[in-house]
Amino acid sequence: MPDTDTPFVLQARDERGVVTLTLNRPASFNALSEGMLGALEQALGEIAADETVRAVVIAAAGKAFCAGHDLKEMRAEPSLDYYQQLFERCGAMMLSIQKLPVPVIARVHGIATAAGCQLVAVCDLAVASSEARFAVSGVNVGLFCATPSVTLSRNLGRKEAFEMLVTGEFISAQEAREKGLVNRVAPPGELDAAVETLVASIVAKPRQALALGKALFYRQLETGIEAALADASQTMACNMMDESALEGVQAFIEKRPPDWKRRS
Amino acid sequence: MPDTDTPFVLQARDERGVVTLTLNRPASFNALSEGMLGALEQALGEIAADETVRAVVIAAAGKAFCAGHDLKEMRAEPSLDYYQQLFERCGAMMLSIQKLPVPVIARVHGIATAAGCQLVAVCDLAVASSEARFAVSGVNVGLFCATPSVTLSRNLGRKEAFEMLVTGEFISAQEAREKGLVNRVAPPGELDAAVETLVASIVAKPRQALALGKALFYRQLETGIEAALADASQTMACNMMDESALEGVQAFIEKRPPDWKRRS
Amino acid sequence: MPDTDTPFVLQARDERGVVTLTLNRPASFNALSEGMLGALEQALGEIAADETVRAVVIAAAGKAFCAGHDLKEMRAEPSLDYYQQLFERCGAMMLSIQKLPVPVIARVHGIATAAGCQLVAVCDLAVASSEARFAVSGVNVGLFCATPSVTLSRNLGRKEAFEMLVTGEFISAQEAREKGLVNRVAPPGELDAAVETLVASIVAKPRQALALGKALFYRQLETGIEAALADASQTMACNMMDESALEGVQAFIEKRPPDWKRRS
Repeated sequence: MPDTDTPFVLQARDERGVVTLTLNRPASFNALSEGMLGALEQALGEIAADETVRAVVIAAAGKAFCAGHDLKEMRAEPSLDYYQQLFERCGAMMLSIQKLPVPVIARVHGIATAAGCQLVAVCDLAVASSEARFAVSGVNVGLFCATPSVTLSRNLGRKEAFEMLVTGEFISAQEAREKGLVNRVAPPGELDAAVETLVASIVAKPRQALALGKALFYRQLETGIEAALADASQTMACNMMDESALEGVQAFIEKRPPDWKRRS
Repeated sequence: MPDTDTPFVLQARDERGVVTLTLNRPASFNALSEGMLGALEQALGEIAADETVRAVVIAAAGKAFCAGHDLKEMRAEPSLDYYQQLFERCGAMMLSIQKLPVPVIARVHGIATAAGCQLVAVCDLAVASSEARFAVSGVNVGLFCATPSVTLSRNLGRKEAFEMLVTGEFISAQEAREKGLVNRVAPPGELDAAVETLVASIVAKPRQALALGKALFYRQLETGIEAALADASQTMACNMMDESALEGVQAFIEKRPPDWKRRS
Repeated sequence: MPDTDTPFVLQARDERGVVTLTLNRPASFNALSEGMLGALEQALGEIAADETVRAVVIAAAGKAFCAGHDLKEMRAEPSLDYYQQLFERCGAMMLSIQKLPVPVIARVHGIATAAGCQLVAVCDLAVASSEARFAVSGVNVGLFCATPSVTLSRNLGRKEAFEMLVTGEFISAQEAREKGLVNRVAPPGELDAAVETLVASIVAKPRQALALGKALFYRQLETGIEAALADASQTMACNMMDESALEGVQAFIEKRPPDWKRRS
């Protein structure tokens, strides 16, 4: 069965506007080949433009979550320009996850290595099966995981991230949680339920509040605290003038549940 | 008994120069109303100007520590300008805690939500009762806790902070300690003793060393490591020329306790 | 036996290019006197220029790891200029560890205090004996550990670092691991084996990948995420064109171990 017969990324969408993207190249451990990158770019681009989407789950088919770049494909075209374009393209795809107006949850059931580990790190939230394992293993073949180090070092402590990057060794799901790479760990049979708990909490909130909030969250992390507070004050004032917030606060005062329109 | 009969913030001061500010609107869970903000601004301004103060403890009366902004008051005056001024004012009050020359300890005995959680995050140190709980819960009424996110994301890991901000859910005191939001957790009956342990350690040090050190600590966090080391070298040289440090080092060499004047 | 008879820093080098620097003033708890600073500067300078070095271990002789600055020496020459030069010199020595092209591991068997704790924090990795203890204790003599705060606050959470700096109290090896100051803790008798595990993992990787990666790691931490990803993409493309990476990836595809030259 040739690789081109099935889509690289499966898309499912429920009635709440929750989109699940499933990496669908189990035979190659869902490597981020050019085909896979293209499919992710397209799916994420569509989600960015669709105001009815409320949350995104990134999952994967087969035994692994994602094994990073497609080394066969990379080895076939050895040129500095090609590599730089490839890594920039992959980095831009990763960053587009952070730029989405809705929260993105990584659902990690198996190994996540190199750029696959970066994918977990760049998601806003991550839930892991207790059997999942994480490594930035490029260094094992002589290729330091430079682009993964960017998001990894923004999730973990400095020495913890450095150790993973120079040893290339796996950490367990439990260690990933303790170090800050994933939010929650569940037994394999309860992984979907753990993801659903987060999803249900997210879709119960107004979309606009989360969109303003997520953008502010990453923006303010890159400034000093005074600029961050100024930006946050402005963002929060705008949010407060939003119909959903005015209704939410009013409902709170009246001790009743807020009456938010479905597409709020 | 009308709300205006009792002060918004109770002040107590012991013979060591330790000031305890107690938020005193238990009926409204010590919400940061304009009255409360004004009282805090005044108290913090006086402390900033008083060289005999050695440490500040922020505590609260009643069942809750602080439930954040006063939603009733906010809902009564819905305008973008008003909200922006309110959030900026609250942010400036929070930042004035970080700018105080003495260490500030949050004593958290009950729930700390939204801007109440921000208040804990912005304090230099925090001690929590094992019954305290923490949430940035604005998102539950459609108002993303934007200003709280600034200090929260400078205390917790990125994914941990994001989860709290989008779910609005409570974390326990123990979780708050593991994530870095509070320093110590004590059973309710031992909370004051746990705060006193930190206070006693602080007042045993020269005021000037802590003042120079605290200012440097926050300043250097916002620069690159080379600029930070340059700033720190200068700060530490100034500190070393201080009478207290010269005496402290001399005492250390002579294996005796330092003889610091009471107002050092 | 006069202090000048033995070198301040012992150097050992094994056949793999692993250099162990041993602080060698046990009687003064390996204080960072001018003699010790000079010896470290020289040793680190030689290592920086030697392309056959693969990893550095910083260890210490006697009961303590390192007790920070030499207070007797400092007290003898009380001038602002002298102190500023001394702290800048020490900071530059510390930073040269971060700038080395090879990973540096602190092997901490006893107390590491003040600038001795800074030394642990600035190393890329740290392994501690379960009996080691850590403090930034300058504040106990009235001298806030300003320069140590720079690296400490880049290893630990903000409140955790602040607590250590204002209380001056010790934390255990286990606490140091939980807070991110050290990577691994081992019983005293297994400390060398724990260090060797990291060293063996490092020397099994190509030198060039680690050199590019380490420099990128610290560089990107000081920029925004977009600039960081751009820098990382370029770094990784250069790394990929390296002979070792091309061979490593090829070997991976062919499911055989890479055939790296000894000095790769």
